[in-house]
Amino acid sequence: MSETIYLLNGPNLNLLGQRQPEIYGYDTLDDVESACRALLPDGLELMAFQSNHEGALIDTIHAARQDGCAIVINPGAFTHTSVAILDALNAFEGIVIEVHLSNVHKRETFRHHSYVSLRADGVIAGLGIEGYAAAIRHILRQLGTDD
Amino acid sequence: MSETIYLLNGPNLNLLGQRQPEIYGYDTLDDVESACRALLPDGLELMAFQSNHEGALIDTIHAARQDGCAIVINPGAFTHTSVAILDALNAFEGIVIEVHLSNVHKRETFRHHSYVSLRADGVIAGLGIEGYAAAIRHILRQLGTDD
Amino acid sequence: MSETIYLLNGPNLNLLGQRQPEIYGYDTLDDVESACRALLPDGLELMAFQSNHEGALIDTIHAARQDGCAIVINPGAFTHTSVAILDALNAFEGIVIEVHLSNVHKRETFRHHSYVSLRADGVIAGLGIEGYAAAIRHILRQLGTDD
Amino acid sequence: MSETIYLLNGPNLNLLGQRQPEIYGYDTLDDVESACRALLPDGLELMAFQSNHEGALIDTIHAARQDGCAIVINPGAFTHTSVAILDALNAFEGIVIEVHLSNVHKRETFRHHSYVSLRADGVIAGLGIEGYAAAIRHILRQLGTDD
Amino acid sequence: MSETIYLLNGPNLNLLGQRQPEIYGYDTLDDVESACRALLPDGLELMAFQSNHEGALIDTIHAARQDGCAIVINPGAFTHTSVAILDALNAFEGIVIEVHLSNVHKRETFRHHSYVSLRADGVIAGLGIEGYAAAIRHILRQLGTDD
Amino acid sequence: MSETIYLLNGPNLNLLGQRQPEIYGYDTLDDVESACRALLPDGLELMAFQSNHEGALIDTIHAARQDGCAIVINPGAFTHTSVAILDALNAFEGIVIEVHLSNVHKRETFRHHSYVSLRADGVIAGLGIEGYAAAIRHILRQLGTDD
Amino acid sequence: MSETIYLLNGPNLNLLGQRQPEIYGYDTLDDVESACRALLPDGLELMAFQSNHEGALIDTIHAARQDGCAIVINPGAFTHTSVAILDALNAFEGIVIEVHLSNVHKRETFRHHSYVSLRADGVIAGLGIEGYAAAIRHILRQLGTDD
Amino acid sequence: MSETIYLLNGPNLNLLGQRQPEIYGYDTLDDVESACRALLPDGLELMAFQSNHEGALIDTIHAARQDGCAIVINPGAFTHTSVAILDALNAFEGIVIEVHLSNVHKRETFRHHSYVSLRADGVIAGLGIEGYAAAIRHILRQLGTDD
Amino acid sequence: MSETIYLLNGPNLNLLGQRQPEIYGYDTLDDVESACRALLPDGLELMAFQSNHEGALIDTIHAARQDGCAIVINPGAFTHTSVAILDALNAFEGIVIEVHLSNVHKRETFRHHSYVSLRADGVIAGLGIEGYAAAIRHILRQLGTDD
Amino acid sequence: MSETIYLLNGPNLNLLGQRQPEIYGYDTLDDVESACRALLPDGLELMAFQSNHEGALIDTIHAARQDGCAIVINPGAFTHTSVAILDALNAFEGIVIEVHLSNVHKRETFRHHSYVSLRADGVIAGLGIEGYAAAIRHILRQLGTDD
Amino acid sequence: MSETIYLLNGPNLNLLGQRQPEIYGYDTLDDVESACRALLPDGLELMAFQSNHEGALIDTIHAARQDGCAIVINPGAFTHTSVAILDALNAFEGIVIEVHLSNVHKRETFRHHSYVSLRADGVIAGLGIEGYAAAIRHILRQLGTDD
Amino acid sequence: MSETIYLLNGPNLNLLGQRQPEIYGYDTLDDVESACRALLPDGLELMAFQSNHEGALIDTIHAARQDGCAIVINPGAFTHTSVAILDALNAFEGIVIEVHLSNVHKRETFRHHSYVSLRADGVIAGLGIEGYAAAIRHILRQLGTDD
Repeated sequence: MSETIYLLNGPNLNLLGQRQPEIYGYDTLDDVESACRALLPDGLELMAFQSNHEGALIDTIHAARQDGCAIVINPGAFTHTSVAILDALNAFEGIVIEVHLSNVHKRETFRHHSYVSLRADGVIAGLGIEGYAAAIRHILRQLGTDD
Repeated sequence: MSETIYLLNGPNLNLLGQRQPEIYGYDTLDDVESACRALLPDGLELMAFQSNHEGALIDTIHAARQDGCAIVINPGAFTHTSVAILDALNAFEGIVIEVHLSNVHKRETFRHHSYVSLRADGVIAGLGIEGYAAAIRHILRQLGTDD
Repeated sequence: MSETIYLLNGPNLNLLGQRQPEIYGYDTLDDVESACRALLPDGLELMAFQSNHEGALIDTIHAARQDGCAIVINPGAFTHTSVAILDALNAFEGIVIEVHLSNVHKRETFRHHSYVSLRADGVIAGLGIEGYAAAIRHILRQLGTDD
Repeated sequence: MSETIYLLNGPNLNLLGQRQPEIYGYDTLDDVESACRALLPDGLELMAFQSNHEGALIDTIHAARQDGCAIVINPGAFTHTSVAILDALNAFEGIVIEVHLSNVHKRETFRHHSYVSLRADGVIAGLGIEGYAAAIRHILRQLGTDD
Repeated sequence: MSETIYLLNGPNLNLLGQRQPEIYGYDTLDDVESACRALLPDGLELMAFQSNHEGALIDTIHAARQDGCAIVINPGAFTHTSVAILDALNAFEGIVIEVHLSNVHKRETFRHHSYVSLRADGVIAGLGIEGYAAAIRHILRQLGTDD
Repeated sequence: MSETIYLLNGPNLNLLGQRQPEIYGYDTLDDVESACRALLPDGLELMAFQSNHEGALIDTIHAARQDGCAIVINPGAFTHTSVAILDALNAFEGIVIEVHLSNVHKRETFRHHSYVSLRADGVIAGLGIEGYAAAIRHILRQLGTDD
Repeated sequence: MSETIYLLNGPNLNLLGQRQPEIYGYDTLDDVESACRALLPDGLELMAFQSNHEGALIDTIHAARQDGCAIVINPGAFTHTSVAILDALNAFEGIVIEVHLSNVHKRETFRHHSYVSLRADGVIAGLGIEGYAAAIRHILRQLGTDD
Repeated sequence: MSETIYLLNGPNLNLLGQRQPEIYGYDTLDDVESACRALLPDGLELMAFQSNHEGALIDTIHAARQDGCAIVINPGAFTHTSVAILDALNAFEGIVIEVHLSNVHKRETFRHHSYVSLRADGVIAGLGIEGYAAAIRHILRQLGTDD
Repeated sequence: MSETIYLLNGPNLNLLGQRQPEIYGYDTLDDVESACRALLPDGLELMAFQSNHEGALIDTIHAARQDGCAIVINPGAFTHTSVAILDALNAFEGIVIEVHLSNVHKRETFRHHSYVSLRADGVIAGLGIEGYAAAIRHILRQLGTDD
Repeated sequence: MSETIYLLNGPNLNLLGQRQPEIYGYDTLDDVESACRALLPDGLELMAFQSNHEGALIDTIHAARQDGCAIVINPGAFTHTSVAILDALNAFEGIVIEVHLSNVHKRETFRHHSYVSLRADGVIAGLGIEGYAAAIRHILRQLGTDD
Repeated sequence: MSETIYLLNGPNLNLLGQRQPEIYGYDTLDDVESACRALLPDGLELMAFQSNHEGALIDTIHAARQDGCAIVINPGAFTHTSVAILDALNAFEGIVIEVHLSNVHKRETFRHHSYVSLRADGVIAGLGIEGYAAAIRHILRQLGTDD
Repeated sequence: MSETIYLLNGPNLNLLGQRQPEIYGYDTLDDVESACRALLPDGLELMAFQSNHEGALIDTIHAARQDGCAIVINPGAFTHTSVAILDALNAFEGIVIEVHLSNVHKRETFRHHSYVSLRADGVIAGLGIEGYAAAIRHILRQLGTDD
């Protein structure tokens, strides 16, 4: 039975902690992943994956169809352009939470539209890296494992 | 010094728990407010207010300029139509987190645009009533009082 | 059980009979309400309410959830701008008929769109104050009480 | 002098009573026409006509210029596409009431615009086949023959 | 060899001379056709046809492929809506002149676009019924028969 | 029981084989109809009909409600403008395949939208006259009669 | 006879003098009202009113129908969203001058459109609080009382 | 009394006869002016003017307010961009005929809109240089001097 | 040091006082300029300039960079079309007030947008020729010379 | 000489047969490829390739420039977003047929536009997996190898 | 034979070196022209011209038809508004290179569209005044004179 | 310290020299790279990379954050669709010059918008392969190494 939460990050998020740390902080993706993993009860795994390649993210979403109970995804710029990731998520039956570090609605107009939101169960934006943890906590409650 | 978090709910949210409970659950706004209050450390108050009147919400946001350190707001339908609430929030200097029970991006097109998001520091949608608690937790961390 | 028909009128309709009587006639809202009430069979009440305040109209629609079997609403200018009234009507389970005195489609473009029509069961425009009576008659037939 | 009311129905309305009777009922156009005719006082005729041909409808509107005091028209799909019917109606000087069985504003976007509404004195939508009778009654009142 | 000029008039133009004569004058389509015929030299025929039926106009344009050297067409309201007439004209190889009695650019926005103009060699608008004669004269010059 | 396949062709398609044969070939509609008929097994009839009149096409679609199991339709220019044909097809319960000789997406923008596609089960464009046969073959497979 | 000038201010303008005084100055609405009142000759009154409630502003515009000769209105954010205020002003027969403290055309796009301008006789933007006095002076001249 | 017809040509039309003569012919603007002048009866003058300067065309339209009974104008590219020429023509009370050598509707989209058409009494496009003569002939008829 | 106020008027404003005096009054531009000059204290000059030529207005704005402390500009039709004037004003560092005689927002849609407003400090519309004086008075207050 | 037909499938099509088999059937891509290969005469090869990576599809299209006579492509979600695949196909000189399993025009609006259709010779949508075979058969006829 | 390169600069570029030198540098147009002239081999002349008048630029482009082999043009604000300059350039047969000092795509939206780009062979933006030299060098290579 | 210039080419540019050499010439990407490398002074390296994979280009832009002083990028079709490449470039602090072989503004509308231009310091289009060298030269000047 499904017992893995996938934590997916899209293009340029590998730079987290290096770019504009005065805004986004000095935590890296590794730190984020560790923090998320620490929230999980026994029996739940975290599969963390970042890629600048749309295809690699789709491949990983397909993999989640096997053993994933939920996906937390920060699609980065693919948020606004990738129908293919939307379609891949549409083929996944677990919980999907979309996370953005900043409030995208305060940025350029083309960042206001999200294909992924057409599938996501929940969307969290502007909470910085804490958004990931908030997503994990919500999933645990939905799964009934947040004791 | 500011020591109150304002929890504001816009039009029709007084029906929470009564309308479509199979979707939104049986918790009422009172339950939400109690749950949020329970999260606060000593020295922080919760000022909870719901109204179907745009003007009453604006009056309350103005009041928050006196003693509010943060506002959690679910503007309901005013999200999409009220420039006046946006302007009131622009005159508030604390943290603003926008909450929606459902993922508005999966609903009608006119619900995809939010005037409030142009000011909000963070936006949480689709987590149901847990979104309020997630907002409070984020504020506490920002205030450095989440120990 | 529900036994009241709500007759709601939005902003500026309190001026009926005073403004441009050569176009709209000399009947006032009171006259309209009396005429509508006269159409009702025993056991059905008319609750008539006009307000220039969006919030007051929403509050009244909420009240109709208790004892209302139908709502006849002329939302006036809120037709084109109020998502909040649409949401309130969405939470009402009885019959909803939208009435406009004039044919709004012959006026400015911004009056061609109606949020209320997204919920209304029927829409009557351009019949002048007779539109209200036509709405009541239709409701009576739907309720099976038009004998 | 003009003493005929034209009852015009556009494309596909000949199927009334056959298609989706669970929604539109089992009454046919013949039934509708009989019901409307029954409402008329002595001295007023009903000329009922249905066609799937835009040109035939225009020809009939032209004929109404001779002996028609009013036109009740359900233009069906031509509502949204026929400037030519609008022009024909513009050349008719009597009363024009536009009727739709369903509330077109709840259907696809391309059904929200009506060329005929640019000329109609009144518009009735969503009252089912009763809309025709409501239109006739309104016309009789306007003509001063509704005793 | 082709020796006929087709003079085609679309919907509602059969009312010419009857509707708003103070604007359009008292000349009828018959008068227009006679005046155009009088301009033709020996060996050129005028085939005049008016219809409120789009299909009948298309049929006639097809006929013009046999013996027509030019088409003068006032498509009336079909100007703005008929791709089918455009396609029929695209299959005609002679000269096509589009005529409008009034300056359509001073009327409603939806009258500013013409499908027929995408094929027409020339467009004449706002010259009243003289526009037809101007079209004929231009064709004669193009054919080299205006001596 | 339904045992006829309707092969409908819209405006200007009567010119097939005459217009631009270097592009569309020298086959006429008669040839197309014969070829399609030849594909049918015993017990299935082909009813072939072409018209430049929208109303005539609608009338024929209505007739197909009696004895038609499928409709193959090349709506020509009506593809882009006829809501009435869409509505007629919506009242037909069999299979509908839309065929275009050319790839309409490579032509003018206004040819990119198809009302008929909103109902069609399948769409075939750009295969030339072979598209009709491909449609028939698909229908036979769906009917389980392609042995 | 009408002898009152109404000075109406919409949402958030009660904050004048408190918010961003380095931009808007330290004058409050009270100061503005006093300054405007000081400009009036004997026999003319100033009725000053501010509200964050759209309905309250409409009610006051209705009151102005009784004794108001002119309205100076800074609708704040309602400028861009309130058709209801436009309609109320349309029912007022005196002079209407629209005032904005800042040049709204230099701000976000959604602030470029004004419903109130569709009724206003004059519009003054960007003159800061002096705009109110300029409006009063213009009205006095129009009334012929500026000597 | 006004006895001059102004023949105005906008930018780049000084190149007539030099640029693409295989399309536009070898006639120059001088030839056009001579041909137009030859059409005039005694007592009517032709004032011909070409400029690449918008201001110079406006100055000349102003001059026509003194002695001009009609203006024939080919605004060239200013057709699509000059509100100022529209305003100047709005201040002229005689007949205005807009002429274009080619059918602008077959060219780029930005050439489909004409500010000048909002004032012109008639528009002639695609008749080549004969369009000027057709305009003059129409004016003579309107003036009642075409015998 | 800068001691001149530039009063610039764009195309067609030379006709002030001649065109539609029943609307705009009988005052000419000369009268306007005299009235403005009369408002100036010693030491401030008025440089008044009108042109129908966009380039001449730009040249004059450039001149104002030398000795101008403020520009009052009624750009006429260039308001809506001239990016070049906007750029010239962007290169001027003094106060810029945009004036329109009528309320442009009540006219055609294409007059609702102003390039000049993107630079103007203040905008005054619909006050007739008094708008110029109101602009001058505002400038004097800004300069601290309105004693 | 070119003797290979490329069968390309875009993102998520590797899930064929696994996702929603009640709609799309239980056939997998392997089954599709086998069925297509079975249609080929001697001397023609099938090169089948699926990828979730846009770049990999482009690389393969480039390879087809060497030995491909035709490409059958179901671009999946890249249909709507990939200009790069369009450009790659533009560099291929053989036949291109675009295939979609479902009728994309019945799905969300953003799926109605296809970049690939701007290059494709033919488009087949809504025939399910039979669309691939129909495409192959059409190519064979075009190549003259369908004996 | 053509042996002149035209260097044209549009409105406000006469201010180069004076306005915002910290951004654009202290070089003036004279410096730019000298630098460009220095690049030319014997037998090639530079004709440099700047104007704030659209008409003067058009006149000069016409002159280039006589002796110009290439035009380097920085149209300034006319880039976005002048169809007339586009038409003038369309009548020039030599090389046209469009130059902008800044990257216009990073500025306001209305600066993103260029009419001149519809004709230009090359476009260089954002290289500052070096863009002119780059244009000249490219032209020399095209002319085969860059040895 | 940074001492490498990155020369990046997007999808389909590996075909340079093979596709349409009569337009783009016979030079290949290798030739381009050699020519660019030849321009570099000692101490500056050229890192040349082409890919049809968006992710690979992003990876390389990230690498340039280590040792790159400038990026010359021809994003090919990704110009119009890749927000991810824009974001990657936004994380790069050196000079960015965007190059296109052809003038994209003369091609289809969807090629007129560039995400990359929102970051690029300079844009060069339509100069063919010389555009790369012009970009390199500009960078050298900016770096102060072009002696």
